[in-house]
Amino acid sequence: MAFALHPQLEAGCDELGRLGGCRLLLKNNAIFPWLLLVPEVDGIEDLHQLPADQYDEVMTTVRRVSEFVAAYFQPEKLNVACIGNVVRQMHLHIVGRSADDPAWPATVWGFDGKKPYSDEEKHKIRAAARSFLGLP
Amino acid sequence: MAFALHPQLEAGCDELGRLGGCRLLLKNNAIFPWLLLVPEVDGIEDLHQLPADQYDEVMTTVRRVSEFVAAYFQPEKLNVACIGNVVRQMHLHIVGRSADDPAWPATVWGFDGKKPYSDEEKHKIRAAARSFLGLP
Repeated sequence: MAFALHPQLEAGCDELGRLGGCRLLLKNNAIFPWLLLVPEVDGIEDLHQLPADQYDEVMTTVRRVSEFVAAYFQPEKLNVACIGNVVRQMHLHIVGRSADDPAWPATVWGFDGKKPYSDEEKHKIRAAARSFLGLP
Repeated sequence: MAFALHPQLEAGCDELGRLGGCRLLLKNNAIFPWLLLVPEVDGIEDLHQLPADQYDEVMTTVRRVSEFVAAYFQPEKLNVACIGNVVRQMHLHIVGRSADDPAWPATVWGFDGKKPYSDEEKHKIRAAARSFLGLP
């Protein structure tokens, strides 16, 4: 069966492309620069359950996406996490954080504020991500 | 200068040993099975800033520690994260989560409950970690 994104991830994000065996998503919340990587696997929920080669590939991809978020959005620091207590399809968060964001210094998980991107903003981020990461 | 743990990490945790260029710590909170890895580096705060070889080593170590937490504590799932908005010395959380823990399904960051381990509990966890992970 073909890999399918969890409906909640699909609803809350825009897909930027595929990278390192993962779907790369932009969370549709302009309050935080927030990307997600969803490894295209079924049946496992925790990172360490990935086969070793795939684990390494996903982690290398996290690094590349972190470099993109740092370079493009220039946040003060990054928060990187694999949680999935609610949406159990394995997904990794790469979030740029700054002392002037409204959740600081708490985490973004549990922060309720939302501000959808404009189409123009999404287009710019998609173009920048594709260029930086060499996405097709 | 020798690497030194941040005082807040030192105060809230017990050191279990050294692994993969990191200090392995047990968070002194029996409410959650919660280990930390602190890469012995200075001057950088974000994971992707680690040199590539060291990044790979740290991530492999995260995987091994995750395997230990999963095998020993048998939680329902793991939460793995590098946040560091408050304590800026780079550290990774590996936390076992279960539907009957008091923070579920929210994250443990921002949850205020604390329950120190007894000396006997700490001793058991230390012994199990050392055996599983081959710590000296």
